[in-house]
Amino acid sequence: MQVLQTSTSCKQHMGTHNQRLEDNHSVLRLLETFLRLLPIALCVTALVIMLKNSQQNQYGSVSYTHLGPFRYLVHANGICAGYSLFSLVIVALPRLYSMTRAWSFFLLDQVLTYLILAAGAASTEVLYLAEKGNMATTWGSACRAFGPFCHKATASTAITFVVVLCYVLLSLISSYKLFSKYDTPTVSNPSKGVEC
Amino acid sequence: MQVLQTSTSCKQHMGTHNQRLEDNHSVLRLLETFLRLLPIALCVTALVIMLKNSQQNQYGSVSYTHLGPFRYLVHANGICAGYSLFSLVIVALPRLYSMTRAWSFFLLDQVLTYLILAAGAASTEVLYLAEKGNMATTWGSACRAFGPFCHKATASTAITFVVVLCYVLLSLISSYKLFSKYDTPTVSNPSKGVEC
Repeated sequence: MQVLQTSTSCKQHMGTHNQRLEDNHSVLRLLETFLRLLPIALCVTALVIMLKNSQQNQYGSVSYTHLGPFRYLVHANGICAGYSLFSLVIVALPRLYSMTRAWSFFLLDQVLTYLILAAGAASTEVLYLAEKGNMATTWGSACRAFGPFCHKATASTAITFVVVLCYVLLSLISSYKLFSKYDTPTVSNPSKGVEC
Repeated sequence: MQVLQTSTSCKQHMGTHNQRLEDNHSVLRLLETFLRLLPIALCVTALVIMLKNSQQNQYGSVSYTHLGPFRYLVHANGICAGYSLFSLVIVALPRLYSMTRAWSFFLLDQVLTYLILAAGAASTEVLYLAEKGNMATTWGSACRAFGPFCHKATASTAITFVVVLCYVLLSLISSYKLFSKYDTPTVSNPSKGVEC
């Protein structure tokens, strides 16, 4: 009789536990979808701003193609937009979860975070030099002559850093999903061994 | 009788399972210790090379303090060396595992990875400009005049990228440890519900 009661209580407990997990997963799924959707718009915006960024005046002409980090920023944003779209489609597909997919997302999210962060850091550095110049290396301030070019490059770089933030969060989510085996909830209490 | 047999077989299975987990944890612990030890030496080396990096000749004088990214690289390497030492001591302390510690390591390892990667990317960018110069912004090649300065800065930056690699691996380990609740192994099979 007691065994029967324990079994019923156990089933109820497992039900509540699984329901709570389901709710958490829905929130996480929604957040992940948003965090993969947002970078598509942001990357395309940053990319278009930089692609159209060129200026010509009495001092000469300058374009994003003249500076390595800005070219890298365009490529990184292009790759990031493509990957975000691709991963969004995969995430949207209902329940195609597998460890291979979890591992792929985990590794690719990490790589994309590093890729886009490096692009942002390098562009920030070149913008700083263009703004302030450098006495020791006799590099003059290019932004005095090419103000609008610098403003557009700054806007593109700032947007890229919002993408970095999205990808930092996505990396956390994908590592949580991989290592906690997100879609296949356990029902044991690890600290006490097997329960229920 | 059959229940007794199943129970004995289950205990044996759990014993083997826990033994395998213990072995994996020992290897992981050793790898983590090595990956926290190595950056101490590397960061200090990169830091000292950059700190001593200055040159004076007929063209003028240049020092790491004149260039923002190199100053940032010195600070990032200093912080990284300090954190690596601190975290090594904590990891070496036997079995002080807690979720707070796992979360702290996870977040700090991620932050350090981004910090040191950004320092490496910015320094690489300024080195590239110093080597090649830039026509559009009329920045001349500084490395022609200050060759040894550039070589030392390149060495320091290259060492920093090895540190980045160590921290990328440490980030993977600390996220695995956090989300798989590394030190408190589960004994259930998630795909089948509760077993044993």
